[in-house]
Amino acid sequence: MSAEIIDGKKIARTIEREVAKEVESFRADTGVTPHLTVVLVGDDPASHVYVNRKGQACERVGITEKTIVLPASTTEDELLALIDQLNAAAAVNGILVQMPLPRQISSTRVIEALDYRKDVDGFHPTNVGQAVVGAPLFEPCTPSGIVEMMLRARCEPAGKHAVILGRSNVVGKPLMNMLVQKTPRGNATVTVCHTATPDFSVYTRDADIVIAAAGSPEVVTGEMLKPGCAVIDVGVNRVADESAPKGYRIVGDVHFESASQVASAISPVPGGVGPMTIAMLVRNTIRAANLQHSRSGV
Amino acid sequence: MSAEIIDGKKIARTIEREVAKEVESFRADTGVTPHLTVVLVGDDPASHVYVNRKGQACERVGITEKTIVLPASTTEDELLALIDQLNAAAAVNGILVQMPLPRQISSTRVIEALDYRKDVDGFHPTNVGQAVVGAPLFEPCTPSGIVEMMLRARCEPAGKHAVILGRSNVVGKPLMNMLVQKTPRGNATVTVCHTATPDFSVYTRDADIVIAAAGSPEVVTGEMLKPGCAVIDVGVNRVADESAPKGYRIVGDVHFESASQVASAISPVPGGVGPMTIAMLVRNTIRAANLQHSRSGV
Repeated sequence: MSAEIIDGKKIARTIEREVAKEVESFRADTGVTPHLTVVLVGDDPASHVYVNRKGQACERVGITEKTIVLPASTTEDELLALIDQLNAAAAVNGILVQMPLPRQISSTRVIEALDYRKDVDGFHPTNVGQAVVGAPLFEPCTPSGIVEMMLRARCEPAGKHAVILGRSNVVGKPLMNMLVQKTPRGNATVTVCHTATPDFSVYTRDADIVIAAAGSPEVVTGEMLKPGCAVIDVGVNRVADESAPKGYRIVGDVHFESASQVASAISPVPGGVGPMTIAMLVRNTIRAANLQHSRSGV
Repeated sequence: MSAEIIDGKKIARTIEREVAKEVESFRADTGVTPHLTVVLVGDDPASHVYVNRKGQACERVGITEKTIVLPASTTEDELLALIDQLNAAAAVNGILVQMPLPRQISSTRVIEALDYRKDVDGFHPTNVGQAVVGAPLFEPCTPSGIVEMMLRARCEPAGKHAVILGRSNVVGKPLMNMLVQKTPRGNATVTVCHTATPDFSVYTRDADIVIAAAGSPEVVTGEMLKPGCAVIDVGVNRVADESAPKGYRIVGDVHFESASQVASAISPVPGGVGPMTIAMLVRNTIRAANLQHSRSGV
């Protein structure tokens, strides 16, 4: 058996076209162009790459985006003062603070300082809590991208056993809370494995859907999977590769070659979850704009 | 094999003694007696019984408690106005609105109106979210009582497979979020089963710990359990029984007779989770008082 490759990039582009239409209709109704402000502290190269991609996606859908770059020496108070300004600015519909932040700044305090109605990353405690009780406002972009990808690739979670590897605040925990909800987007029996799980393959062997967000290169191999399952690979790991131009290549948490022989569907790295995450960000931004203008929409 | 019976009542009394000491030390430091206000709308007999028990526990630990009883015809606006007053009252450290509320009142809106720093039930979205990200302020009383009971009965969840039956906002979902955390109180591999799970016995048979919060009488039987597991029964179900004085008896979600032959430890109904829930409420109330007086404590 050779698995169907779930084309995250293609699905993301479809969603972006939907968002672009919604942005157009928002502009026609309100005379206002939705706007996202991204705050980037320091000069981490990977962060700059991610922020660039987010800006490009905004451009594709007609959302204006501004990136404010602050020096790595920025203090927490300086950043909090900026967030206060952005919270108060009516023209700013969404605020995204790119993580990680330099050591002297508490990311917890920064996230809590955001107006949760502008928190398009969905990390504010109020947004986290709303998602748990089944009344989400903004869901974090990576887990909501995963769910959206599963639905559009016809790997519906409802009634299935979904096994999540990893319990981060960015992926594992919010995804567990989404998949367990009594909605057509959820309704899965959910198991969460992590570093304190003695042997996660006991669980993946029984899973209809495996979502690998463990942060370890190629730890999920074909023999740990149930034939016909779906595999979503959230990992982005650098491994040394002398034959590659940069001296390394990017692999997921799943050993693609062996897994794709056993699964019926699998998302690749790159081109799987990554583009979905960015599509969810622009969707959250138009949702924020709708919310602030008391307008229903996507 | 015959299981050890986990004596929830005894453990709860131990915790109440710890809380009583803390209350004493709080009074000595601040000159103030911690106070809980309970709001009860309507005349549901079960709610009146629960509220009575909560008041008695407050009395045992030295917390003053006042129950405000409102008529069943109370409007949402009237209740929200009362909550505003209680939020503003410095002498009120904790506020508990007894559920369920009459139909004309949205429990969601009422919970969101509470000052989350006085929300000793732990249901405010901010408190729900804080518990998910691993920085809890107040955890809901039933799931925190379950975890506390497991720890004190030496059924530590760390490294075990915990299977939760039920995904309510009151028990299943908050418990899943507590057990999955990277702390000595959590660190379990967690599976959540619910009404969309085709056959939950597939999961309970593999579980080291089963927490039954399904709301169905005696649905977990001995043959669904792994020998030596621990069983926590959260169910409170009335079943008709002509031989009982009231014409019914109370049973849990677990079939006690068969389960206690297979498990190594089991919590009974009544006398298991129930008293723990109330002990957690008084502990949350002294925590609220400490928080509001910028005092560290239990």
